[in-house]
Amino acid sequence: MRIMVQKFGGTSVATKDRMRQVLGKVRAGLTDGRKIIAVLSARAGETNALLKLAHEWSETPDPAETDQLISTGEQVSAALFSMLLKDEGITARSFTGQQIGILTDDVYGKARIKEIDTERILAAFAEYDVLVVAGFQGITGDGRVTTLGRGGSDTSAVALAAAAKAELCEIYTDVEGVFTTDPNLCGNARKLDRISYDEMLELASMGAKVLEIRSVEFAKKYKVSVLVRSTFSDAPGTLVTQEDRSMEHVMVSGIAYDKDQARITLRSVPDKPGVAASIFGHLAEAGLSVDMIVQNPSRDGVTDMNFTVSRKDVKRALDIMEKVREQVGGLDILHETTVAKVSAVGVGMRNHSGVAAKTFAALQKENINIIMISTSEIKISCIIEEKYTELAVRALHDAFGLDNNSYMEAQ
Amino acid sequence: MRIMVQKFGGTSVATKDRMRQVLGKVRAGLTDGRKIIAVLSARAGETNALLKLAHEWSETPDPAETDQLISTGEQVSAALFSMLLKDEGITARSFTGQQIGILTDDVYGKARIKEIDTERILAAFAEYDVLVVAGFQGITGDGRVTTLGRGGSDTSAVALAAAAKAELCEIYTDVEGVFTTDPNLCGNARKLDRISYDEMLELASMGAKVLEIRSVEFAKKYKVSVLVRSTFSDAPGTLVTQEDRSMEHVMVSGIAYDKDQARITLRSVPDKPGVAASIFGHLAEAGLSVDMIVQNPSRDGVTDMNFTVSRKDVKRALDIMEKVREQVGGLDILHETTVAKVSAVGVGMRNHSGVAAKTFAALQKENINIIMISTSEIKISCIIEEKYTELAVRALHDAFGLDNNSYMEAQ
Repeated sequence: MRIMVQKFGGTSVATKDRMRQVLGKVRAGLTDGRKIIAVLSARAGETNALLKLAHEWSETPDPAETDQLISTGEQVSAALFSMLLKDEGITARSFTGQQIGILTDDVYGKARIKEIDTERILAAFAEYDVLVVAGFQGITGDGRVTTLGRGGSDTSAVALAAAAKAELCEIYTDVEGVFTTDPNLCGNARKLDRISYDEMLELASMGAKVLEIRSVEFAKKYKVSVLVRSTFSDAPGTLVTQEDRSMEHVMVSGIAYDKDQARITLRSVPDKPGVAASIFGHLAEAGLSVDMIVQNPSRDGVTDMNFTVSRKDVKRALDIMEKVREQVGGLDILHETTVAKVSAVGVGMRNHSGVAAKTFAALQKENINIIMISTSEIKISCIIEEKYTELAVRALHDAFGLDNNSYMEAQ
Repeated sequence: MRIMVQKFGGTSVATKDRMRQVLGKVRAGLTDGRKIIAVLSARAGETNALLKLAHEWSETPDPAETDQLISTGEQVSAALFSMLLKDEGITARSFTGQQIGILTDDVYGKARIKEIDTERILAAFAEYDVLVVAGFQGITGDGRVTTLGRGGSDTSAVALAAAAKAELCEIYTDVEGVFTTDPNLCGNARKLDRISYDEMLELASMGAKVLEIRSVEFAKKYKVSVLVRSTFSDAPGTLVTQEDRSMEHVMVSGIAYDKDQARITLRSVPDKPGVAASIFGHLAEAGLSVDMIVQNPSRDGVTDMNFTVSRKDVKRALDIMEKVREQVGGLDILHETTVAKVSAVGVGMRNHSGVAAKTFAALQKENINIIMISTSEIKISCIIEEKYTELAVRALHDAFGLDNNSYMEAQ
């Protein structure tokens, strides 16, 4: 049986007219004898309206009951869309997470999928050509409704694709795919035809908000090919898939940036075992997420340490550093909230030298000072002054030849 | 285990403040170690809003998908109310019809309950003191959501009471109970302390819209005691229960009326076998519900036939009668839409003569002409001119001594 999953976000199902465009995508998917699993989000604004209601009813709404409440948003979308399909003569049925059998753990509000009942999907296809599934939700072993957290419908779609051994999982959104960088910022950004899971993970975590990061991890784990494309055009989109040889020829696939960065500097940190563990242990205990960490080589028994956090966390991070100072003594605490991060991402850089050098040279040429540097196997990130963000992105985009029709081939 | 069911309608759960009053009722119910099943309707207006959405999406919305859609209204109520209970330190959990295991047939929009999973209810009570159940809904054997039709939450409540062997099923509404007649129409109408299932069925079917008729049938079948009372007062309400000796001492328990009546008269109907069957067979095929039927004795091989239908059905009924005339020939068709029905109801009249005579005398005394008469074991109904309805109700109410504190004892 040939099966395809198609996921449609909140703006795509917001109105009847938009659902009609979605219907066109489903009809197109049904050609060649394929069966379709259509995964729908709640209509734009509905989830927030339900959450607002919960907070009117309770200062701290019970998480399990909140999930029972907000899961109705997707159920409404799925039922309405099934009505449209039936009116068009397409055999279809809507399913809640419980009805299709999406088993999750019981971490309400951000549950993880444990298992999907493949048999139930295949049995339903004996009767229907399209299964319309309410995204974002599942059920615990105890029969309670859970939700999967922000962007959870992407994860629903990829997980259903894995369970049904679908040939493709299409994620429909309001952009045409994944771009080499933000098109609003760089006029000659180019849509990528293909991108590897790892590159997508690096881009997604840095603010390329096309695909929810957990769904990409899921896709990588189960080798699900994901096609990101637009509900509102016929453009072919971007395929997120396993790394292949052709990708390795491209040193850098995209340039990402993130302005939600604040730098905290600790000067004269005693260079003794356990100090770094103490600093980052306290931050982790407080639930603060640290992004980049750079430690300079020690000199005269003391060292400098730099790390970045989200701007909303700066105050709490500084409070925690005050406590660390009381414990270890002596250090100076500085911070800066007007910094940003720019990153070059590409699986090709694994095999090719010169990416770091080219990055630094491109920034230097524009007189942009690099405050911190951090590298991974497929990524180079630089912290710079925030005001240079747009200039830096364009400079790197040009330097790696990412503009339209000019691939930067490996040397 | 002592279990009580409490059902709260749409106006009782419309706002957070009203739900707080409901919470008071649940807390009161929890005394003496009782466990509570709270059955909730959708917040007032929600079901109609969802139905409106369905009709925007489709001219003839698929019935199964409509049920999947509108069932979310009760799910929202149940989740919100559970939040309130938990905030008050009461162990509670919300359940959809599917989650609590209310199995129905697959007649979407007016499904009938086939079975309820008693084990699941008892297991849930091991963990929670209050089970908050979304009313009005169930699930087919095939896992599809169904709804039980207008007033279906009453039926949910009574069925859950039967399954859980509850000691009582309280139906909270915006009136204080069942009255001897409409208090808006007769100033000295008296609230009944008790009423039998059969009397309640006769009163309910004639427009005393306190309890949905199917729920009363269910209560009678499973001997569930139902207490109708107000969410907004502490008045003791009316107990709908099995007939007992004390009820037989009262000849008439209440006076009902129904203005949604139209009379159709067929004159010169050939008095041959099969003619009546043909007339009412055609009406039934068209889905028209006939209330009273009166046939005068035959004279010269022809007879007159009178029957009543709902006023909205008059035109269709007349069209059908035209077809009957074409088949059997000769008859005259007359109709009148300004008639009403008044009825005296009471299990006591089974054993006591004189109820009919007293009814006719009371109407005659006010110069009210009786157009049609129909009797059952526990009811006498008269069709009269509509303009006399209020006068007739008051006359009968007085004649049978139903005003406050003056029971009409049997002779």
